[in-house]
Amino acid sequence: MARVVMKFGGTSVGDLDRIRNVARRVKSEVDAGHEVAVVVSAMAGETNKLVGFCRDLAPLHDVREYDVVVATGEQVTIGLLAMALQDLGVRARSWAGWQLPIHTDGAHSRARIVGIETAVLLQRMAGGEVAVVAGFQGMGPDGRVTTLGRGGSDTSAVALAAAIKADICDIYTDVDGVYTTDPRIVARARKLEKITYEEMLESASLGAKVLQVRSVEMAMKHGVRVQVRSSFSDATGTIICDEDEIVEKELVSGITYSRDEAKITLVNVPDRPGVAAAIFGPLTEANINVDMIVQNISRGIGATDMTFTVSRDDFGRAVKVLESRQKQLGYAELVTDPDVAKVSVVGVGMRSHAGVAQTMFGALAEKGINIQVISTSEIKVSVLIAEEYTELAVRSLHTAYRLDA
Amino acid sequence: MARVVMKFGGTSVGDLDRIRNVARRVKSEVDAGHEVAVVVSAMAGETNKLVGFCRDLAPLHDVREYDVVVATGEQVTIGLLAMALQDLGVRARSWAGWQLPIHTDGAHSRARIVGIETAVLLQRMAGGEVAVVAGFQGMGPDGRVTTLGRGGSDTSAVALAAAIKADICDIYTDVDGVYTTDPRIVARARKLEKITYEEMLESASLGAKVLQVRSVEMAMKHGVRVQVRSSFSDATGTIICDEDEIVEKELVSGITYSRDEAKITLVNVPDRPGVAAAIFGPLTEANINVDMIVQNISRGIGATDMTFTVSRDDFGRAVKVLESRQKQLGYAELVTDPDVAKVSVVGVGMRSHAGVAQTMFGALAEKGINIQVISTSEIKVSVLIAEEYTELAVRSLHTAYRLDA
Repeated sequence: MARVVMKFGGTSVGDLDRIRNVARRVKSEVDAGHEVAVVVSAMAGETNKLVGFCRDLAPLHDVREYDVVVATGEQVTIGLLAMALQDLGVRARSWAGWQLPIHTDGAHSRARIVGIETAVLLQRMAGGEVAVVAGFQGMGPDGRVTTLGRGGSDTSAVALAAAIKADICDIYTDVDGVYTTDPRIVARARKLEKITYEEMLESASLGAKVLQVRSVEMAMKHGVRVQVRSSFSDATGTIICDEDEIVEKELVSGITYSRDEAKITLVNVPDRPGVAAAIFGPLTEANINVDMIVQNISRGIGATDMTFTVSRDDFGRAVKVLESRQKQLGYAELVTDPDVAKVSVVGVGMRSHAGVAQTMFGALAEKGINIQVISTSEIKVSVLIAEEYTELAVRSLHTAYRLDA
Repeated sequence: MARVVMKFGGTSVGDLDRIRNVARRVKSEVDAGHEVAVVVSAMAGETNKLVGFCRDLAPLHDVREYDVVVATGEQVTIGLLAMALQDLGVRARSWAGWQLPIHTDGAHSRARIVGIETAVLLQRMAGGEVAVVAGFQGMGPDGRVTTLGRGGSDTSAVALAAAIKADICDIYTDVDGVYTTDPRIVARARKLEKITYEEMLESASLGAKVLQVRSVEMAMKHGVRVQVRSSFSDATGTIICDEDEIVEKELVSGITYSRDEAKITLVNVPDRPGVAAAIFGPLTEANINVDMIVQNISRGIGATDMTFTVSRDDFGRAVKVLESRQKQLGYAELVTDPDVAKVSVVGVGMRSHAGVAQTMFGALAEKGINIQVISTSEIKVSVLIAEEYTELAVRSLHTAYRLDA
């Protein structure tokens, strides 16, 4: 017997038939003798509809009222799923965020979970009742409804799994696991049996959209074993776990890419203390997230080049902010390129193996792909290349690291 | 300065433009210096959609989960209206049933309000903040979400007005007041300035659909002055109040009618103790509501005729129930007529004036309308007639009692 948290996203509960399907999946876990808590999102499309209401009504709306409105999406799903379970003869009851409660901080529309009260829940689960818990929502310090921000249901599920010390947190989704790379680009991509928290975290940050970054961070922090698996098949998924649990570590676990990159270079920036702060301060103020930053050494003329990337949505605004400050920043020229892609190689094996980056550089050189910027961390190497080479680069690297199935 | 409860139904908050309109109405009360609480229903159509989900998913669903699902409709509206008010510069915050809380009993889907905690609310209202309160919902003794049943938002508004000792409870609706009769039938129908609780209660029971019976009962019990008025015009509506407040009482305040009537007569029922219980017991068990009951005196043959009405929806089932028990009940024949209407004259003046019923009988006789059944109470006389005479009867009575404008 195990204690299991199951999480189903909006597509998995998108209509009544799918909710019935979810109920059957839950029932099979109950029939196997497990204690089960289910975390669900709003039915697909509902959250967007509710967010649209708020935006149309008042663009500068009170986020506390926004939370009151959008949290209703999950409340509908928990009631319906509890009914569907009861209809299959499974004892179940719904729990809104304020009912457990799931305590969060007061940062409405992007709240963080600070604690979950579980005594009653555990007692009922031990008695055979399935807990159907609303994802994405909680209760703030003042007793008002909060939401965790987009994708927050993954975080709710992991936080609940940590709080009730679940043996596993199964995240049901429209993909059946974590792959070595995007199967739409590389037909020979392999589903991984296991992947470490660190690798998953890097992959999520680097553009793989399987899980929310925050939920992986939380899983790592609390040691929650997470499984990514399909809502529509019974196949085993991919388990995200501690490095120690993975006996045969791969050197590289995956190749990720992101096309949502635009490159900006400030040419001949005065090379003096405080220049980076002067450049990135105004961008931060404008709420523009800066990603890869590369500063080359000074060229002996007291000036350097500063290159970084922003998401394409922010590109235009970033350029405007910098152009308006050319005098203060003292750069000679702004060189921009909105058509770049970031390709990354991720793997905890890098820590103990030399030559991982070299394999990447060699593979790209062989295909004549020019590397514009390089950035590394302990377990990943990222490069910026012209966007048109994305698929070619990903496929070449997948083969070079012997990831092909 | 007054303390005001304003209530807006589903049609009045049916889309974002209408919610903005409601916000403007609320603002004008705030600008007039009043302390305001607003009670709102779900956007038109939303409750039906949510109820449909529950029915389709599991016809025999858990009513506790039903309440979790359908209560979301009002939660969406309170958030949106609070935003719309803030957008007009009016301070406002939303309150779900569980937040005040509005305490109810545990009868899910048809709960009764047992108390409302108002200390925080009153404090904030005194500070100039509009309270936007979800109608139709509350919190049961076990902390779960309850709903009051259809039309429950009127009851929520009146209960809140009683709890905060409001000077008036304005019910905004798609009609601009209470009329002496249905203006669609009688062009010269007059809007009443005031009407007593008792008259309103009888009218509501007799088919006038302006207000829910329960909300009028509650208003009468707590002495809450209620005004029925239009969401779409500024005209004064009709005030429902205590008899003492009405200086010039009318003999008759209105003529009501209901076409939702079907007549059943059991001919030659044995005239012995317990026969009424034997007839109506099985109907009650079948959840069939019986309205007008008339039993004539025994005709000296030890038998009597028992006539009563049921709503047309229940007619077929009622006949089946009675036919299956002909032997036990011992009646000779079942005579039925699904094409009858009930026409009623209502007025507190009847208590002190003789001849009110006689005016009715005379007016109907003059038009050649046959009265099939008569039933009276302290402040109303109802008759059953052939349905095709409904309009003629209502118009004749409206004139006979000098109600024409």
